[in-house]
Amino acid sequence: METFFNPSSVAIVGATEKQGSLPGIILKNLLGMGFQGRIYPVNSKYRTVFGLNCFPSVLDIPDEVALAVIAIPASSVFEVLQQLAQKRIHHAIIISAGFREMGAEGMKMEEEIRQIATKHTISIIGPNCLGVLDNYTNFTTSFLSWERVSTPKKGSLSILSQSGAFAVSLLDLAAQEGLGIAKMVNYGNRIDVGESVLLPFLRDDIHTKVIAIYMESVDHGRRFVEAAKSCSKQKPIVALKVGKGAAGIAAAKSHTGAIAGNYEIYKAAFLKSGIIEANGLEEFIDGVKALSMQNPPKGNRILIVTNGGGFGVIVADYCSENGLEVPPPSPQLKGTLKGKFSTFYVVNNPVDLTGSACDKDYYTALHTCMVESDEYDAAIIIPLMAPQGMTEKVVALITDVMKQSGKPAVICTVGGVFTTKVKQLFEEREFPVYPSPERSAKAMAMLLKRRKLQEGASHASP
Amino acid sequence: METFFNPSSVAIVGATEKQGSLPGIILKNLLGMGFQGRIYPVNSKYRTVFGLNCFPSVLDIPDEVALAVIAIPASSVFEVLQQLAQKRIHHAIIISAGFREMGAEGMKMEEEIRQIATKHTISIIGPNCLGVLDNYTNFTTSFLSWERVSTPKKGSLSILSQSGAFAVSLLDLAAQEGLGIAKMVNYGNRIDVGESVLLPFLRDDIHTKVIAIYMESVDHGRRFVEAAKSCSKQKPIVALKVGKGAAGIAAAKSHTGAIAGNYEIYKAAFLKSGIIEANGLEEFIDGVKALSMQNPPKGNRILIVTNGGGFGVIVADYCSENGLEVPPPSPQLKGTLKGKFSTFYVVNNPVDLTGSACDKDYYTALHTCMVESDEYDAAIIIPLMAPQGMTEKVVALITDVMKQSGKPAVICTVGGVFTTKVKQLFEEREFPVYPSPERSAKAMAMLLKRRKLQEGASHASP
Repeated sequence: METFFNPSSVAIVGATEKQGSLPGIILKNLLGMGFQGRIYPVNSKYRTVFGLNCFPSVLDIPDEVALAVIAIPASSVFEVLQQLAQKRIHHAIIISAGFREMGAEGMKMEEEIRQIATKHTISIIGPNCLGVLDNYTNFTTSFLSWERVSTPKKGSLSILSQSGAFAVSLLDLAAQEGLGIAKMVNYGNRIDVGESVLLPFLRDDIHTKVIAIYMESVDHGRRFVEAAKSCSKQKPIVALKVGKGAAGIAAAKSHTGAIAGNYEIYKAAFLKSGIIEANGLEEFIDGVKALSMQNPPKGNRILIVTNGGGFGVIVADYCSENGLEVPPPSPQLKGTLKGKFSTFYVVNNPVDLTGSACDKDYYTALHTCMVESDEYDAAIIIPLMAPQGMTEKVVALITDVMKQSGKPAVICTVGGVFTTKVKQLFEEREFPVYPSPERSAKAMAMLLKRRKLQEGASHASP
Repeated sequence: METFFNPSSVAIVGATEKQGSLPGIILKNLLGMGFQGRIYPVNSKYRTVFGLNCFPSVLDIPDEVALAVIAIPASSVFEVLQQLAQKRIHHAIIISAGFREMGAEGMKMEEEIRQIATKHTISIIGPNCLGVLDNYTNFTTSFLSWERVSTPKKGSLSILSQSGAFAVSLLDLAAQEGLGIAKMVNYGNRIDVGESVLLPFLRDDIHTKVIAIYMESVDHGRRFVEAAKSCSKQKPIVALKVGKGAAGIAAAKSHTGAIAGNYEIYKAAFLKSGIIEANGLEEFIDGVKALSMQNPPKGNRILIVTNGGGFGVIVADYCSENGLEVPPPSPQLKGTLKGKFSTFYVVNNPVDLTGSACDKDYYTALHTCMVESDEYDAAIIIPLMAPQGMTEKVVALITDVMKQSGKPAVICTVGGVFTTKVKQLFEEREFPVYPSPERSAKAMAMLLKRRKLQEGASHASP
């Protein structure tokens, strides 16, 4: 599997400098990322491409080739695979579309490819896909222009996605959310390599801490559950299952030829294998962001601190809806807090620092409730940046005191330009920020779900 | 009521040039917005404030005063109200906090104010509030710095909010979402003016087309339902009810002293009065954005057009979940589309233009399905901007063809910097853009809800 992410040498079949051509963009992206392995452009029309020697076919490459990337019309893919077999290349990423998703004829071509691959033990990612991105080896087969799609920083999230568009948007969002990425794999029609082999690989990957899966269907039901079970014991897996209702199932079939199947079966499989299911794209990205940046809380007693009472009320509502407790502080803790604050601050849970709050009040409230006391397991903090007393300094104060407490926190803040700047500062320090009360409560709930899975797994072991 | 939004003259009690003082910021904001009415600073300490003559008390103002804005400590408010009575000022906005939300003593002060106001027919907004913003008369009593909170453009949305922080964040978000605002009212503890009198006023306000209400409780149950019923016949009302569960109800009580009451009763009241309820902040802003920018569809047959198959699948799922149909095109329409597109485009619903899509393909798909054919009532369009063939020109093509069709559309697009630019272009043309498939489907569902309410209302009338 490693060869797909860090090939010692790679052939780019169809490589060209022509504007807009997929293999051309792939080559350009690869060179742009600074990949260190050997690269062999393959195209009978050229002697050189982007300054590299170009070969008429893979058979003409004088050295060993570990991986071939194929991005030519579907009808020519079979012939190239025959050459790979002859050259003893055992790994191929087939970017080309035009197979099963196109109906009977495409399905026939796909079947022929499957047969030749099996016969000659060629491991395949694709077809109809973007392939891979590895932020640590700087290897990619993406054919998207990086001027359009931002590159996320190095990090601990790895993404598995049947959908290419989805994988790309997720990368773009990750870049925007300050969320670092380890690996991305998009396998499209998934003729061979799928979730069941990728999950064990990611379980053992040192850079991967959290795994996100977009799925229309899975490759092998039973093997998938086994792989996920073993993987989720070590690392959180969050899944977005699409193709749930009749309209979505039909759409999934048109899209990657996937038989999305009965949603109830998937739900049961997720439960069995310790996968956390997300409801929708936002819950998906919000959840993996929380899991990548913060640890699960030890329990479900949540403290809410805010300078916007209305937001505190909404977060409290969504905590209740999502199985989180918002217990009032004990009389003793209440007394301590009251002694430290102006009389019109509302000392309760939420702690409402009101529109008069200044940065330091957040430190005081959190130090008192989360460091000096052990009444709460985690905090949802809602610093609204509109009032005069609030400055960027609140970021360091909040993140420092939470680190002292050793307990997790998520941040909710809502607003425009200045708020966006503060959000970035929080996320640089690995505190996830959400733009709505309901999303912050759901993200905290997802951290707690992970905690419960860990407890369940440790109870189950002998 | 008009006096609160467009006073011929206004006294700012407590006005000062002192940095950080609330009445000072209010005065500065008012001058900054270019309000045309007469302004009288009131403060015994100064002769002039920001170049305006300053008076020791309202009684010393030589002219008639239509409205007094009071932002001084709670304990001094009663005395000022006595002066208003003497000066026959019949409108006051009390910004000051420190009343009912502070417990027994505050409640007593609030009751004294209520009594004097009733006796002298002084209409009051507040206390514990931000007051009003009118984007057409340029009048505001907001004490927030406009460097922190962006000002939304003139528009058709009016906001009623018990929570000040919420109102402010909504303004900031509106500015960011390209959503124009007519009026905002934040009434805090709501000693007098509340939803029941504001709704009839907004019903008749020529600038208001859509009304958004944040509510912890309502002022008068029966009067509120009557007012909302009459208002919702003409204009959509979207409500965000907070304080639903035990934790939220307790938080609401601490916040504005509101008795949030039984959520089920509110749900019944919303149903009876034609109010659309939003679940959470995002559904709230998403819904009012859709209703402000687009008309309700005639039916629930939705066409999905995308160049990202995976997103099409998710939107189809969430359409089903939210009562929207995603019917396949008729054989005839399918044939027409197939004749116009490359063979590997997926002609179905969703229409999947794949990663090879270019701008013009969106025009072709939408013209064929929405203008030439009448099989669909509305469209959810998902132009992902990563592929090479997609440029900003897609905005004009999509919005032009949808205007030709006379049918509503919402846009979903997901990504970073370039996508944000495209989003702004769409929203300048009054097409609402959402950053996730689920939110675009829910926004369309809210447009349809409005349609059903209109139909219900017209059936119910004799």
